Amino acid sequence: MSGSLLLKSVRPGGGPAVDVRIDGGRITQIGPELPSVGADVVDGRDAIAIPGFVEAHTHLDKTLWGLPWHSNQAGPTLLDRIENERRLRAPLRLDPAVQSRRQAIQSIRMGTTHIRTHVDIDTEIELRHFEGVLATRERLRPYVDIEIVAFPQSGMLVRPGTVDLLDAAMRSGAAVIGGIDPSVIDRDPVRHLDTIFGLAHKYGTPLDIHLHEPNELGAFAVELIAERTRALGLQGKVMISHAFCLGGVDEPTLDRLLAALADARIAVMTTGPSGRPCPSIPRLRDAGVVVCSGSDGIRDTWGPFGNADMLERATLLAMRNNLRKDADLEACLDVVTYGGAAALGLPAYGTAPGSRADLVLLDCETLAEAVASKGPRALVVKGGRIVARDGECVVSPES
Amino acid sequence: MSGSLLLKSVRPGGGPAVDVRIDGGRITQIGPELPSVGADVVDGRDAIAIPGFVEAHTHLDKTLWGLPWHSNQAGPTLLDRIENERRLRAPLRLDPAVQSRRQAIQSIRMGTTHIRTHVDIDTEIELRHFEGVLATRERLRPYVDIEIVAFPQSGMLVRPGTVDLLDAAMRSGAAVIGGIDPSVIDRDPVRHLDTIFGLAHKYGTPLDIHLHEPNELGAFAVELIAERTRALGLQGKVMISHAFCLGGVDEPTLDRLLAALADARIAVMTTGPSGRPCPSIPRLRDAGVVVCSGSDGIRDTWGPFGNADMLERATLLAMRNNLRKDADLEACLDVVTYGGAAALGLPAYGTAPGSRADLVLLDCETLAEAVASKGPRALVVKGGRIVARDGECVVSPES
Repeated sequence: MSGSLLLKSVRPGGGPAVDVRIDGGRITQIGPELPSVGADVVDGRDAIAIPGFVEAHTHLDKTLWGLPWHSNQAGPTLLDRIENERRLRAPLRLDPAVQSRRQAIQSIRMGTTHIRTHVDIDTEIELRHFEGVLATRERLRPYVDIEIVAFPQSGMLVRPGTVDLLDAAMRSGAAVIGGIDPSVIDRDPVRHLDTIFGLAHKYGTPLDIHLHEPNELGAFAVELIAERTRALGLQGKVMISHAFCLGGVDEPTLDRLLAALADARIAVMTTGPSGRPCPSIPRLRDAGVVVCSGSDGIRDTWGPFGNADMLERATLLAMRNNLRKDADLEACLDVVTYGGAAALGLPAYGTAPGSRADLVLLDCETLAEAVASKGPRALVVKGGRIVARDGECVVSPES
Repeated sequence: MSGSLLLKSVRPGGGPAVDVRIDGGRITQIGPELPSVGADVVDGRDAIAIPGFVEAHTHLDKTLWGLPWHSNQAGPTLLDRIENERRLRAPLRLDPAVQSRRQAIQSIRMGTTHIRTHVDIDTEIELRHFEGVLATRERLRPYVDIEIVAFPQSGMLVRPGTVDLLDAAMRSGAAVIGGIDPSVIDRDPVRHLDTIFGLAHKYGTPLDIHLHEPNELGAFAVELIAERTRALGLQGKVMISHAFCLGGVDEPTLDRLLAALADARIAVMTTGPSGRPCPSIPRLRDAGVVVCSGSDGIRDTWGPFGNADMLERATLLAMRNNLRKDADLEACLDVVTYGGAAALGLPAYGTAPGSRADLVLLDCETLAEAVASKGPRALVVKGGRIVARDGECVVSPES
């Protein structure tokens, strides 16, 4: 929590300039010429104010951000990349606490106020990555919300002991249970899904399932996930991440899958990858499916790209979906803000009075221009506290 | 031309740090601890030095860069966008000289030292856009090379009088003759291509043909272009821009087209669009086809995106082609530098002694990291003259 803050002359959602008053971590008043009594005052200079970006899918524990350049040698398949990463963990000697802090601070600089991160759990590293990210979560608590997914990256059934470790993570502060490619990785889609849905049911937590499986194989997994979501009454608490299959099936199958997702209120996370088939954002949204986005891995052993900028992510989503009109660009901005908040169930998200004061000021003319230009972040406010200004975070990544 | 310049401690091509001496617009010496006598000295602080980026495809005359936000209302087809643009030209009152200067200066800031720009010529605007860009070309001559393509954006045969205007432009300083979608726009592929190849033959100039036509229709155009290139001995002087069809035909057809392109030494320009099929850069390069890239239209009535950054373009190319290894990222950097130089036939391009002193200094660790990070441009040198420093051009866009 923090003191009071008065943002003079900002434009919530790109509308007319007003003052925004923040007290006790909430937006309390919006209007012209609000009193500044007892508040720190910031001149917003007519910047657009939007709620903080939601990074709905990343891997804080594995980033190489801030380290010397890593020359990627992984093979082309998913299993190649998982094995390559496991092989490199020892020689790279990554410190998950240090690395997760570095990336989280980069996120704050870029205007993100909430992060969902999948953290590797397996029988080799056990809970060490989880504990590192937990430390970062606590350390950065005033500056950004970090939600941890207990994630069996290397498989669960194929590595006996992993389920117990996931269970331990759920008892120790993981907020979400993760899953991954139930046919390709664990070679047993029903038992994989039954296991993670069982854990979600046991702890009353949401699920977030990586689904890279293509075309009909992925479509089958979507159906199994939707059946279990409905059977356990988990509507609104399940996310499918990537869901590449939605970009690869025929139209009647796609219609059927979209209807199942909407019916079970399963959200979809897409990074909008340009190099492979992926879900169409307009199709998902038209079908009533909640859509969010994320950076995925940033500069790690999987790949060299990424900068944790969710506004640039909106640009990439727009380009990937060949969108050009203002309303369509605004929809992509919605995906990385309100869509993420809806998918993650964030309370009091927005810019209305009563909302949590998680805000970004963008030096842009319109919301659409912000997406087209990836405009500068003048100010980032988290829970009423200024956490970044002109691209510099108030916390040092190395402190 | 300019005086002498000594770049202390820079890393050509990402190699070891050396000094680079420039005299009379050329690189004259490379080595350790070169004498600074008679030269301005810049401390390169171990930055990577690469030759200036080649923007091989843009539309300087039509950008809205530097103007208030334009709300895009164009329909989805190519013809929609052409008609929308023609309709808006009068109300927008674009000044092609002012707009082309604005974008060219943005290019210089980002490290581009050579621009090929397609300039609209039609029976409504006649040569006015061409003359505006010609003025910018002359005005910015010390800072960036601008090569003008006389471009029949709205068709040529369907608008009688256009061919005479193209002919006039070729006499008045256009360096390249352009063409566009010979079946879709002019509805007569043979006569369209015969006309522009005739102009190229008459003036001894290269050709650069926009080819958005998809799949088999585009493949047919590629064949017609290759036949004419060989028949007129224009090998090495023809470029196909976009060539979307190469991303949409079956494997045997693709093999045949790639062989025809390589045989006729026809270069391909791809922007690596993420929202539609496009040529594979590895396939093109493996087949021996010269590949270059460009920004295409930047913030114009066609679409809101773009910033003239050819290093970011390399990033987008790598992502679009799902490339992650160092050598593959370097190949994408090659596309926006040496590939562009080869496609445009630029003499003495490079960083060896004798090369024209067109250089960019990148504050990056490796070439691959430059592509992944879109790293900052510390210095841009054109013909031995410093034209931008820390992202600021020495020429004001509004002067």
